[in-house]
Amino acid sequence: MRLSRYFLPILKENPREAEIVSHRLMLRAGMIRQQAAGSFSWLPLGKKVLDKVCRIVREEQNRAGALEILMPTIQSADLWRESGRYDDYGKEMLRIKDRHERDMLFGPTNEEMVTEIFRSYVRSYKDLPLNLYHIQWKFRDEVRPRFGVMRSREFLMKDAYSFDLDFEGAKAAYNRMFVAYLRTFTRMGLQAIPMRADTGPIGGDLSHEFIILADTGESQVFCHRDYLSLLVPGADTDFTDDAEISSIVKEWTTPYAATDEMHDEKTWNAVADKDKVSARGIEVGHIFHFGEKYSKPMGAKVTGPDGKDHFVSMGSYGIGPSRLIAAIIEASHDENGIIWPQAVAPFDVALINMKPGDAGCDALCEKLYAAYEKAGREVLYDDTDQRPGAKFATADLIGLPWQVIVGPRGVGDGTVEVKSRATGERDVRKVEDLLASLENAA
Amino acid sequence: MRLSRYFLPILKENPREAEIVSHRLMLRAGMIRQQAAGSFSWLPLGKKVLDKVCRIVREEQNRAGALEILMPTIQSADLWRESGRYDDYGKEMLRIKDRHERDMLFGPTNEEMVTEIFRSYVRSYKDLPLNLYHIQWKFRDEVRPRFGVMRSREFLMKDAYSFDLDFEGAKAAYNRMFVAYLRTFTRMGLQAIPMRADTGPIGGDLSHEFIILADTGESQVFCHRDYLSLLVPGADTDFTDDAEISSIVKEWTTPYAATDEMHDEKTWNAVADKDKVSARGIEVGHIFHFGEKYSKPMGAKVTGPDGKDHFVSMGSYGIGPSRLIAAIIEASHDENGIIWPQAVAPFDVALINMKPGDAGCDALCEKLYAAYEKAGREVLYDDTDQRPGAKFATADLIGLPWQVIVGPRGVGDGTVEVKSRATGERDVRKVEDLLASLENAA
Repeated sequence: MRLSRYFLPILKENPREAEIVSHRLMLRAGMIRQQAAGSFSWLPLGKKVLDKVCRIVREEQNRAGALEILMPTIQSADLWRESGRYDDYGKEMLRIKDRHERDMLFGPTNEEMVTEIFRSYVRSYKDLPLNLYHIQWKFRDEVRPRFGVMRSREFLMKDAYSFDLDFEGAKAAYNRMFVAYLRTFTRMGLQAIPMRADTGPIGGDLSHEFIILADTGESQVFCHRDYLSLLVPGADTDFTDDAEISSIVKEWTTPYAATDEMHDEKTWNAVADKDKVSARGIEVGHIFHFGEKYSKPMGAKVTGPDGKDHFVSMGSYGIGPSRLIAAIIEASHDENGIIWPQAVAPFDVALINMKPGDAGCDALCEKLYAAYEKAGREVLYDDTDQRPGAKFATADLIGLPWQVIVGPRGVGDGTVEVKSRATGERDVRKVEDLLASLENAA
Repeated sequence: MRLSRYFLPILKENPREAEIVSHRLMLRAGMIRQQAAGSFSWLPLGKKVLDKVCRIVREEQNRAGALEILMPTIQSADLWRESGRYDDYGKEMLRIKDRHERDMLFGPTNEEMVTEIFRSYVRSYKDLPLNLYHIQWKFRDEVRPRFGVMRSREFLMKDAYSFDLDFEGAKAAYNRMFVAYLRTFTRMGLQAIPMRADTGPIGGDLSHEFIILADTGESQVFCHRDYLSLLVPGADTDFTDDAEISSIVKEWTTPYAATDEMHDEKTWNAVADKDKVSARGIEVGHIFHFGEKYSKPMGAKVTGPDGKDHFVSMGSYGIGPSRLIAAIIEASHDENGIIWPQAVAPFDVALINMKPGDAGCDALCEKLYAAYEKAGREVLYDDTDQRPGAKFATADLIGLPWQVIVGPRGVGDGTVEVKSRATGERDVRKVEDLLASLENAA
């Protein structure tokens, strides 16, 4: 993409309304624009990151056997009356009347609707296990939305719902999502630690939040140092092997890990001091087993192998891709801007033409641009007539992993400068070597 | 995908509520489920088609230079008061009050919001042309939603908005979208004919509907037979060449074509009888130049080369992917079910195991399944214990382009039967030949 034809409205000033660094950087880098309290448009650069994040989420959900559907945003209130939540939900639910004065609502979550879908079609335990997910916009009418997309009113959510014959099946479904989440966050360059979460009236121990460590995190968390070196399961993990999946979960739930809320001083004190990691964290995912909470009131049941009807045992599994992007920035930035992990970077390379209009610089840039694209790497080519200083500042701010700098001196030498955004290291590379390495990658 | 692990709730009976064939077939094929009047969930098979349709739309928008953003569904009423449309829009607009009693609405379209984005950042003609599009759910509260996703209340829409310095620029932007639309529909296997549409108070001739011909179409259309053989521009079309693009538009607007509404008997009578095509049609896209209609009241202006401020000249360009899927089915089905054009088929191949449990059939199916996947072809493998008749009926109903049928007799001979869904032709093929052709494709 040529920057001259792109829409990248960089802000030079720090927006006053932004209280946290991710909000500030997303506004400054032209990723988002606020449209109303807690409501944002995703501009081209932001939309590209959102797509990359969603793609990874989707691939790992599919790998774990979940099936993608898409439910509408507007729901009928009647469904929520069946579960009893219509009255319970409170003011966070955006309630709407349509032109026929029917009670509708903008879905804050989808347990009711997906349970309705399930009960409409599924009759037998033979059709289980089933896990349906969608990635759809939700609305929760927060009193005081803040922190940009970290706590907005309209937000994107991947929510998966599992249906099983019994607790044992539900636990296996839970474990699959647990492992899928480990892989999802790792692929995005994040270190996410599963921490036991409150199960409320449901009870049991099947509720985990996935927390990433970031100095600017919203809450205090505690964990054993072992987590920092635990191996995340590979792409060849067999999600149909319950025993394999269960052993991974065991490995990842054995060392101590707790949010402030669930912290237990006594157990914590048994951890050796050198192994204690006490840090700030941000919740990026939540998985939860809730059994028959919805299947019972809504009559979602299947015939079991015993010939009798059983209410299905359910769980739900959430990741907020829009919020996640803010979390990634909180975990990965410096004073100059964002530092995107490779897998979610909007482009791979910022190609900076130091002197547009100079025949040598233009020609070399075009050559490199074509070579990168051919190699399947995405390039944002700064062909604008901004001064070099402004170009460097923009490149640092938007945080693409690599900057390739083409100037008149290098053109004479047959070299370009390649800078890693993460380390700041600059390397002078021969153009022919760079082109050869791209050719090999193509 | 193994059908035993998929969620494909086929209906045997024709749903009574479905008045048109696409609605009936989408329900029967387990593509959608109605959640409320005019509101549908997309089940796994439907979601896959929706993704393929959106992908083609997106690729052609990008090729034509449009940039993807994503605006929120919920909008502030204040924006619509600026353009004067808040009061004008009527009951189709879903009006909402948030918890602070602020007037909000579920966006039925986005002219106001995108104009607000534009005016917030763009100051100079040098940043033009600009075309921003998004693919987002819209809501229009129809009195009587019907025909499934063909006329639903919540629907997916690709809406693009172009911004130019003057009419000449706006016309070039319009032409680019015109050509992008020709390519978009052709790639989906549709023959779409651009027909002049009413421009209302805006005037001029820059408004076209794209109509596909289908016996079950909603309206009467008239066109010259030449349209049926006009060449659609290729992927190498240079969208930066205004003259090239303009000549394509000229070619595609010269022969007579009109919807019932715009039909002119006098001009029509001048067409030779043998060239007259009078048929039923379905609107699948609409492009529209509206000049300063929003830029003027909302103050969206740029400094021109003359140093003066100019209100930008705008156009909008819509395709409804959810509606489009129904239109594709109306145009491509038979009495047994859907016949997907290759490019939007949810899977390429239905692999039918006639006798699961038979070691030979199972082994051959697994081998073919792996070979297809390796060749990058998507397969729905019917490994269920349904009877062959039911499997054939399902395969015909869901309309995948190819059916590969594996039975015990063929296993003995080293052959499989390959059926084309579109032509019904069946071919007995040697397994080794089929595998070799897949290997070559991989």
